[in-house]
Amino acid sequence: MCETCGCGDPALVPVEIQESLLAGNDRAAAHNREHFAKAGVLAVNLMGSPGSGKTALLEATARAKKAGLRLAAMSGDLATQNDGDRLKRAGIPARSITTGSACHLDAELVHKGLHDLPWRDVDLLVIENVGNLVCPAVYDLGQQVNVVALAVTEGEDKPLKYPVMFRKADLVLLTKVDLLPHLDVDVAAIENALAQTMPACEMIQVSAKTGQGIDEWIDWLNHHRSSIARKATS
Amino acid sequence: MCETCGCGDPALVPVEIQESLLAGNDRAAAHNREHFAKAGVLAVNLMGSPGSGKTALLEATARAKKAGLRLAAMSGDLATQNDGDRLKRAGIPARSITTGSACHLDAELVHKGLHDLPWRDVDLLVIENVGNLVCPAVYDLGQQVNVVALAVTEGEDKPLKYPVMFRKADLVLLTKVDLLPHLDVDVAAIENALAQTMPACEMIQVSAKTGQGIDEWIDWLNHHRSSIARKATS
Repeated sequence: MCETCGCGDPALVPVEIQESLLAGNDRAAAHNREHFAKAGVLAVNLMGSPGSGKTALLEATARAKKAGLRLAAMSGDLATQNDGDRLKRAGIPARSITTGSACHLDAELVHKGLHDLPWRDVDLLVIENVGNLVCPAVYDLGQQVNVVALAVTEGEDKPLKYPVMFRKADLVLLTKVDLLPHLDVDVAAIENALAQTMPACEMIQVSAKTGQGIDEWIDWLNHHRSSIARKATS
Repeated sequence: MCETCGCGDPALVPVEIQESLLAGNDRAAAHNREHFAKAGVLAVNLMGSPGSGKTALLEATARAKKAGLRLAAMSGDLATQNDGDRLKRAGIPARSITTGSACHLDAELVHKGLHDLPWRDVDLLVIENVGNLVCPAVYDLGQQVNVVALAVTEGEDKPLKYPVMFRKADLVLLTKVDLLPHLDVDVAAIENALAQTMPACEMIQVSAKTGQGIDEWIDWLNHHRSSIARKATS
């Protein structure tokens, strides 16, 4: 167990400590999930590598005229409030969560973050996780859906090399597709790798720069948000 | 402490367990370092985000006619032997280390990996870590130098947002610079962010596609390798 990021060799850490930590997180996540369900808010855990374009995607989502849906966000990073500030400038009620040295958000951090956000007044709360294609997948935050941003610049075989993340993904947003003409990357190969790892392969090609795919992404959000809202009022 | 990647909230894990795990890793790392020093081999811990171009960089290094220096590599990933296979096809004696679900290599994994590599017969052993801009920085592997691959596609502020990694970096390779004409990214802003985090800011702009900067990178390796070799024979 490292003193800065909390990572360690699971084989060397007593099982009871592993279990009690995850169980504590699961309790906090269940508590968050109950909050979201009661309020009819769709909570999205948005994960992906550093620089996969998570913040730019949310900026583009806020810009999209079709949006309609009310959006709030929290943004996790080891340091700086840069992403939270960017989201605020894009008109999204947002706050930054700095983890210091931890490589992921956990349910307790998200719960604390809720206190400073008008999250009950929105349709959609996006929790932008720390940029990391491994660890965030392990921590339930209380979200209803997991979305992974995967940039075309990351190459074709990431789903196979980082299966822990992609096995948890409800949707993969293939970002930065405007760069495809300049890359030796085959989208069909990426889709094939996703089909081998995701429980149900669903991918949308997006570009925050050109706006490609943003409407389709918003439709996806609205679809999932509607079923949450129906449950909340029924 | 999670059951898959071993990450946890350090605040919740008893200090004695954290310390004993890191101490165990440090002992194994010291053992590796002793091996490398005796053999006059420069060991490089090559880190960076998923898709930052670490493997492509090594392929380009092998292709470079100027190389001269004998190179071996090990390549860490959660799953697949893809990267090790790519390196072998490029003519580099290499082996893959699959971590299962762990988000980083540790000194023990590297030590085990040495048994299958002709590492005493080379000048340079590159340990390509799991793609992750957080956790690998915490684990000493016994390397003499830390090199971080940072792709221009990752944006300008990564050094500020992931300071744990960049504080440990002896060199940053700014990769994929052939894509700069297609991006809204300012190299001076990246360099400025590196200057704020690296102990001594050193950056080389490279492109595995065009070969830009590869000679300079090899010069850097040769320079560091010479001082290791001098110490081994003195």
